[in-house]
Amino acid sequence: MWILTAILGLIFIVSARYVFVVSDRTGLTAEALANSLLCQFPSLDIRSETMVFIDNLDKVGRVEEKINGVYAQTGMKPLVFMTVVDDRIRDRIMACQAVFYDFFGTFIEPLEKELSMESSHTVGSSHGVRDPIKYTSRISAVHYSLMTDDGLETDHYNRADIIVIGVSRCGKTPTCLYLSLHYGVYAANYPLTTQELDSKRLPPVLIRHRAKLFGLTIDPFRLLQIRQERYQGDSYSSSSLCQREVAQAESIYRVARIPYINTTRMSIEEIGAKLMQRSGLTRSLL
Amino acid sequence: MWILTAILGLIFIVSARYVFVVSDRTGLTAEALANSLLCQFPSLDIRSETMVFIDNLDKVGRVEEKINGVYAQTGMKPLVFMTVVDDRIRDRIMACQAVFYDFFGTFIEPLEKELSMESSHTVGSSHGVRDPIKYTSRISAVHYSLMTDDGLETDHYNRADIIVIGVSRCGKTPTCLYLSLHYGVYAANYPLTTQELDSKRLPPVLIRHRAKLFGLTIDPFRLLQIRQERYQGDSYSSSSLCQREVAQAESIYRVARIPYINTTRMSIEEIGAKLMQRSGLTRSLL
Repeated sequence: MWILTAILGLIFIVSARYVFVVSDRTGLTAEALANSLLCQFPSLDIRSETMVFIDNLDKVGRVEEKINGVYAQTGMKPLVFMTVVDDRIRDRIMACQAVFYDFFGTFIEPLEKELSMESSHTVGSSHGVRDPIKYTSRISAVHYSLMTDDGLETDHYNRADIIVIGVSRCGKTPTCLYLSLHYGVYAANYPLTTQELDSKRLPPVLIRHRAKLFGLTIDPFRLLQIRQERYQGDSYSSSSLCQREVAQAESIYRVARIPYINTTRMSIEEIGAKLMQRSGLTRSLL
Repeated sequence: MWILTAILGLIFIVSARYVFVVSDRTGLTAEALANSLLCQFPSLDIRSETMVFIDNLDKVGRVEEKINGVYAQTGMKPLVFMTVVDDRIRDRIMACQAVFYDFFGTFIEPLEKELSMESSHTVGSSHGVRDPIKYTSRISAVHYSLMTDDGLETDHYNRADIIVIGVSRCGKTPTCLYLSLHYGVYAANYPLTTQELDSKRLPPVLIRHRAKLFGLTIDPFRLLQIRQERYQGDSYSSSSLCQREVAQAESIYRVARIPYINTTRMSIEEIGAKLMQRSGLTRSLL
């Protein structure tokens, strides 16, 4: 058995392509772009490693070792996706045995020419604290979302940018936390209870905030799955209840003309981007 | 007065450069790269707009209108940063009056050649739900972080990937929520209370989880500022208490050999990336 596992492992190592993401800061940008490119090759097996905060020449040695090590071991140049601002660091890395996708280097020169400006070439603060006021308000937004999670503190709804509503376990909490963390949006959420759903009306506490409401809905079978993982055997996680609750929630949204989206096959990032778009909230660069 | 405001407003409009971020999905990748490029030009005034989910030809009209509208109005081509997979949509957008930074188009061909594979050219799922199991575990991680926020449910620490500790209001909660949302890490946090700090020892409940502990520290003056915003006049937000607590926490970290970082000038993304790096947690693509 272990021989089979070892052979399979070896085949995987041989057939997999090594990918390195190298960044002088958090690596988030380079990872995002590497991801969006690589997911266009679904049959490609990859082994990836992200190396971050490579912001001085002393740290380059480790990167060279890894990249050249993979080449020496496999005879195949790894793919290196990178965002590095400093030319000297970039040049040293690009002397390694690899194929490079240099996100920063490719675009900074054309941009300098277009703007007739020299770039500052300082190691990025694109995910740093550029604007302390904006940053503090992002943290406040997180605390607001926690404070108003799951129908708490509804008397603070005047401050909300958006109030996400839906049946229990349809994804309201992660969505609101993401909106506040990523976009600094004051996002509250309110669960529609069985009694409220049975009444077929928008709960009174929500009526005067109708312009801020956004509904989530979900495939009832997916909802059942999620609830069963947590509360097995409970009536709360019965198939008929899930179906009824989802139908009732959608009916309330339609009657009250509340915009809503189906989250079943969406990631938090996609739900967040859709909510920002559909509710007209502004997202700004820098 | 209003004339002055109007003139100043006009100067700003004239001198600002218009930037559009166009994406067929969430726009997160294109925004991240646009940000990291543009923050290299700190003196540049920009006005930006992100247009997302441009995933069919019917939606291109709106984009053309915006871009060409800005050019007609200002006589200056806007900068367009984009990630669009579909060639027909990309070609139509690139016929507009603008300067383009085409992240996807630039790298996909070289990548196809290197891999000797054709890309699937399907609209990206780089922020979508590619792996449902991985995705569910990310949501579970968020619920874990909420459940174990602020020292709650310490008997669930066996499941933690990391336990973030520090004085009150130093940034533990947003950090843990970010780690769970973005990386799917089970991140608990525990606040060091005045009594625990005075005892100069690691609280007993943390001792057996020492390998998972990670400390946050912060400039005491920044801490004072944060606490005063919330609890003005309270002894909790006195300058001497902030200084004492921070010194005590750092001393506990050093004596117990707990890795720690100073979060004062760091964004949540930077803190998150540092914690992942320093505690050896793996981040993987796709």
